[in-house]
Amino acid sequence: MYQQIDTYVNKCISLSKEELEYFHSLLQYKKVKRKSFLLRAGEKCDFEAYLVKGCARVYYIDENGFEVDLLFAVEDWWISDLASFSQQKPATLFIETIEDSELLLIDYKSKEALFKKVPKFERLFRLMIQKAYETMMDRLIANISKPAPQRYQDFVKKYPTIPQRVPQHLIAAYLGVSPEFLSKIRTRLSKT
Amino acid sequence: MYQQIDTYVNKCISLSKEELEYFHSLLQYKKVKRKSFLLRAGEKCDFEAYLVKGCARVYYIDENGFEVDLLFAVEDWWISDLASFSQQKPATLFIETIEDSELLLIDYKSKEALFKKVPKFERLFRLMIQKAYETMMDRLIANISKPAPQRYQDFVKKYPTIPQRVPQHLIAAYLGVSPEFLSKIRTRLSKT
Repeated sequence: MYQQIDTYVNKCISLSKEELEYFHSLLQYKKVKRKSFLLRAGEKCDFEAYLVKGCARVYYIDENGFEVDLLFAVEDWWISDLASFSQQKPATLFIETIEDSELLLIDYKSKEALFKKVPKFERLFRLMIQKAYETMMDRLIANISKPAPQRYQDFVKKYPTIPQRVPQHLIAAYLGVSPEFLSKIRTRLSKT
Repeated sequence: MYQQIDTYVNKCISLSKEELEYFHSLLQYKKVKRKSFLLRAGEKCDFEAYLVKGCARVYYIDENGFEVDLLFAVEDWWISDLASFSQQKPATLFIETIEDSELLLIDYKSKEALFKKVPKFERLFRLMIQKAYETMMDRLIANISKPAPQRYQDFVKKYPTIPQRVPQHLIAAYLGVSPEFLSKIRTRLSKT
């Protein structure tokens, strides 16, 4: 159960067997079906979840009732509503699985206890959030200024497995285009 | 020179006098006039800069040659092209001061040395990047789905001193509206 997250952790920091076991003891394993909600807006988000297997999306519902996808997550990604988690306030985001998924969750108190007992984890989470920040920055730049075909190409490059795993209408919504227009882009690109 | 950054640091972590002095020894003080470039796209960004005094903007130039502002920074903020800095690759962003500014810079090697010698700084930089991530997420959500007057109100709430310090056309560009439309929004809001 922990093999994958241990490989992930070992890429960033070196831990003793005891430190690793302490980390494991703080994690909660969760196996959920596709289309399960891990979080709904309004709830307090008391987890950061590492995706062992599966796929999930993070979205919010705008003032007109439309779902707006902010990011898709696959194996080795962490998902959370970070503002809700770190400030312990109600979430604004929804987190829903797209495939049957397995996750390892850490709650707020456990994470703070982990930092206190094994400060090396500060580095792991710094590098994790740094990567997420860079992804978010790319998304913002793409959203503001890149034409849709290039947004799609960048998306496929960044998330090579997602087009096969996520329904087309969700990818279209993520890219800010209609499903019909996305279909046209894919056809055009497949010919080049 | 270090009083302000020490106050900032002490809010997050507790340091001994020796640790604080070591930190200071790694910082480079820089005083620049307004409209100075700290970074241009294509260069390697070898700094994270803490703003002691002044105001700066981070932007990129899109395919049509337009400047797109990603964020404004004032006292107590850090600025960098993080992807360029952390991966030591060419920058895609420009960083330019809007006011005469004073900064404290740390370069890549010094930051890694700092983490090695005083690992507590991992926490400081984790919390810093986490705040930046939340700001970027808010900006993305606002950009995708909030109407311009609300984007302006949120902006003023988040950066109360900026409307007095940053030229109107830059704020308009940041919000994705024309300067004329921003002027109308401000007039309308001032009457309510």
